[in-house]
Amino acid sequence: MRILLIHSDYLEYETKNKTGIAEEIPEDKMKGHFTESLVVFTAVEAEDEENPDSVIENAVNEIVRVFGDVKADNVVIYPYAHLSSSLSSPKTARRVLEGMEEALRERGLEVSRVPFGWYKAFRISCKGHPLSELSRTIRPEPLKEEEESEES
Amino acid sequence: MRILLIHSDYLEYETKNKTGIAEEIPEDKMKGHFTESLVVFTAVEAEDEENPDSVIENAVNEIVRVFGDVKADNVVIYPYAHLSSSLSSPKTARRVLEGMEEALRERGLEVSRVPFGWYKAFRISCKGHPLSELSRTIRPEPLKEEEESEES
Ligand SMILES: [Mg+2]
Repeated sequence: MRILLIHSDYLEYETKNKTGIAEEIPEDKMKGHFTESLVVFTAVEAEDEENPDSVIENAVNEIVRVFGDVKADNVVIYPYAHLSSSLSSPKTARRVLEGMEEALRERGLEVSRVPFGWYKAFRISCKGHPLSELSRTIRPEPLKEEEESEES
Repeated sequence: MRILLIHSDYLEYETKNKTGIAEEIPEDKMKGHFTESLVVFTAVEAEDEENPDSVIENAVNEIVRVFGDVKADNVVIYPYAHLSSSLSSPKTARRVLEGMEEALRERGLEVSRVPFGWYKAFRISCKGHPLSELSRTIRPEPLKEEEESEES
């Protein structure tokens, strides 16, 4: 997984056209407006297929750390395939993005998730302090034999 | 090289703190405001060191093609290390970014280049049509033996 974390004054989006892999969304997710957010642009990668749960856990730990450092008010997960040239399947991408949303919420953060698979217009304001733009590569842990046998 | 091309209603930036590799800039480059731009976020990569001139040429060809497709008014080159986890030296990055600026100008485009090596606040508005966000990986051509011997 590649993530780009932007500490932003605001992020606004509007969904435009659907792509072939668009998630169905309720009316209230057609647009969004967030302020004082840590925006997490996220590309789920092919190698994350091996152990998506560990990628979720490692990403969430990193996001929580940066969130505390920059003292943002909330997190916005923004699917962003353009951060990688080696993407996972759309199915795994959605599973990981939704898993991050849920895990961050369990950690007590206010979280929003921008719709997957839509063309979107957006406006963002990046604050410009030294921690306001960070990127990370998040790797899956190899599945332990025990975990593998539990699954089979 | 990784590039992210955003067809934008506007892009604004202000330089904040310098990093250790900041270019010296005149007062009038401390801020910038551009409208109807194709913004080219650019990360020059380690493998581009092999043949920077070919990377410039390949990138410029791609930018000119997209510029025509989206009918932008001008190009803004925006250095963006966060698009790659395998960067070139800062020296090569600056050479390539400046080379792109010059080559695009020679192709008749109005071009601006955002300062390298500064923390910057920025605001951008992405239009949201299907071609308004594109990413590309640009590869260097292997140096031909002739070219190599010309240099030695
Ligand atoms: Mg705050």
